[in-house]
Amino acid sequence: MSHLSFSGNKLNAVLASFLDAARQAGTSQVGKAPQSSHGFLRLHANENPFPLPDAVMKTAFNILERLFHYPEDDSASLREVAAKVYGFDSSQVIAANGSAEILSIIHRSFLSSGDTAGMLAPGFGYNHKLAALQGANLVDIELKKDFSFPFEEITSSHANKMKFLVIANPNNPTGTFAPIPVIEEVLKKVDRLVVVDEAYGEFGPDSAMRLIDKYPNLLVLKSFSKSFAVAGARVGLGFGHPLVIQNLLGSLSMFNMNILGQAIGISILENLAAFKPLHEAIKEQRTRVSRELELLSFNVVPSHANFVLARVPQGTESIEWQNALRDRKILVGGFLGGRLKDSLRITITTEKQMDTLIGALRDIHASFAPKRDQLRGPQNMGSKTVNQNQL
Amino acid sequence: MSHLSFSGNKLNAVLASFLDAARQAGTSQVGKAPQSSHGFLRLHANENPFPLPDAVMKTAFNILERLFHYPEDDSASLREVAAKVYGFDSSQVIAANGSAEILSIIHRSFLSSGDTAGMLAPGFGYNHKLAALQGANLVDIELKKDFSFPFEEITSSHANKMKFLVIANPNNPTGTFAPIPVIEEVLKKVDRLVVVDEAYGEFGPDSAMRLIDKYPNLLVLKSFSKSFAVAGARVGLGFGHPLVIQNLLGSLSMFNMNILGQAIGISILENLAAFKPLHEAIKEQRTRVSRELELLSFNVVPSHANFVLARVPQGTESIEWQNALRDRKILVGGFLGGRLKDSLRITITTEKQMDTLIGALRDIHASFAPKRDQLRGPQNMGSKTVNQNQL
Repeated sequence: MSHLSFSGNKLNAVLASFLDAARQAGTSQVGKAPQSSHGFLRLHANENPFPLPDAVMKTAFNILERLFHYPEDDSASLREVAAKVYGFDSSQVIAANGSAEILSIIHRSFLSSGDTAGMLAPGFGYNHKLAALQGANLVDIELKKDFSFPFEEITSSHANKMKFLVIANPNNPTGTFAPIPVIEEVLKKVDRLVVVDEAYGEFGPDSAMRLIDKYPNLLVLKSFSKSFAVAGARVGLGFGHPLVIQNLLGSLSMFNMNILGQAIGISILENLAAFKPLHEAIKEQRTRVSRELELLSFNVVPSHANFVLARVPQGTESIEWQNALRDRKILVGGFLGGRLKDSLRITITTEKQMDTLIGALRDIHASFAPKRDQLRGPQNMGSKTVNQNQL
Repeated sequence: MSHLSFSGNKLNAVLASFLDAARQAGTSQVGKAPQSSHGFLRLHANENPFPLPDAVMKTAFNILERLFHYPEDDSASLREVAAKVYGFDSSQVIAANGSAEILSIIHRSFLSSGDTAGMLAPGFGYNHKLAALQGANLVDIELKKDFSFPFEEITSSHANKMKFLVIANPNNPTGTFAPIPVIEEVLKKVDRLVVVDEAYGEFGPDSAMRLIDKYPNLLVLKSFSKSFAVAGARVGLGFGHPLVIQNLLGSLSMFNMNILGQAIGISILENLAAFKPLHEAIKEQRTRVSRELELLSFNVVPSHANFVLARVPQGTESIEWQNALRDRKILVGGFLGGRLKDSLRITITTEKQMDTLIGALRDIHASFAPKRDQLRGPQNMGSKTVNQNQL
């Protein structure tokens, strides 16, 4: 008898109407997507605009009747469901407001002033801020020139003196993937906590989750923002050794997650199968967009995530492409400097949004042609090949 | 054109149906309330079970169509609205997952290992955990014997060596209130950050908010959990000097609040007037329950919050009352030891829930009568008066 509880029939009627309207606004579950709220197509934040399964929306809807109620402390139910779904004990699971919050408490728990940790680079810059807050130093361990995994560097004696290593896999913003046997070799060789950030895991070919029971120095992070399309709900999980998890849980703020994050996290875990077609659809579009970009003389890094990293065509600059796309109401990611300054990071979403993207890219490519021809002297004829080697 | 956006009319129809069903489940806005989900009347957590205004529920409902979307970082819009409503600049406002998260970053930002901070006591035990996480020491500054404000203690040279002081006002679990001119004297005398935690502010007679522009060492916290009935959404605000706020903002996790917390926070601030009758209703019930408790020989501390602290009648124990209430499906707060070991903390909610509470209290009181008579020797005849003096 809550102020928002309905008799079963009444609730079902309201929900049916809600979901019906949702369906009318789009078509089927996979293949329709919202435009951004401000009239921009958001391909810059690796969000996933596919609609949620009806069962998940129903959960989100239902939980609103319990807004007056404190959430569960320590998100015990969410952790239990996650443990069950992935085959662990809940003492091996932490839940938080996105993997960002888990990264935050990893830094707080394991870094003191003057300490050093390491991160695969180019990577998630936020980790640098977190280390700095502790007065610690985060060392970039650079991917090789071809963006392959720097195994020697990451298992060096230098790295083995660091407090922990963060390996995003698939990595952001490169979309590259280190095979799990390679990760296992790292776990064997490195006597440190190794944080494998699988924020983009569901778009990749494999996962380090199966190594958790074997290596107490492994902590795997999952984000629901990309794979499960709820960046706005802030849901992240971490899986690892009970002692590591216990340590991290102790640093969480009281009632850190709200009831929506907890409920929607549980509901997604209970409906994982419904997300498979969504992931397949994104992979399909990733292949399509990568091919199109190559046709337009971009150099594309083979991606295992829901985005592609691509170097802009010789004779053009990344910022020009970003601006031209923005003029066409499309936002993509760019880089201020460093080895990616000539690249764009573009989120892969629905077929329809990718149609819009590809149309705009072709259009811009054509508009840049005169400039490109002007800039290209005879000495640049082989530039495309040169670019590929640089990648 | 989002997957959950409706044409205006369609949306209104769905909402009307939703709100209509909510109204059918209860009666008017003030005066109806849910029972707890598990069949228990929850009077132990200072939650506020009054239904939210329709406009706020509508916002919560609408935001579900943006779940795929990252929230605003730093909750800029919520902070701007809060600043406007309370007459500040947004540089003077921080927003987080409840005031618990703000307390957490206060401890992280201002305490290093070996430092000391102070807290009004008995108080919110969570602060002790937060200080311990920093390797710091949180000193309890005890309320006087009659639970009045320990002005001399809190302005002593001892307190003035602490990194900061936390003064909950109204205080939890006593419900006592320090007049704002007294708080102002503390701010003048203490050359430290003074955190005035007004989690229960809307149930009290006054607020320190008007001192913020005058005293750079003042930080006022507001929680939406009690006053605004959304403990489950996790919304807390802090108001203070821009340099203090900037420092705290820098320690927040990226995207700390989710879209529900941000949206509902804004909507509540835009509908503050709708909560006035709710606060008045709770104050009315507080008076009623206090009087009833006194009739049953409890010693009641005059409360300025949405709970009352009451010492159980002579010859009975707090745990007996808790158990007897639990047997009647009512949860109330108790204390394991210390100066409150003989007290209960009971949340004040709706008239109907308080009817249930009072009925149960009378019933239990009657059932304890034989035991009470047995225990009371002639030497205890004046015990009620003695108890009052001890409070």
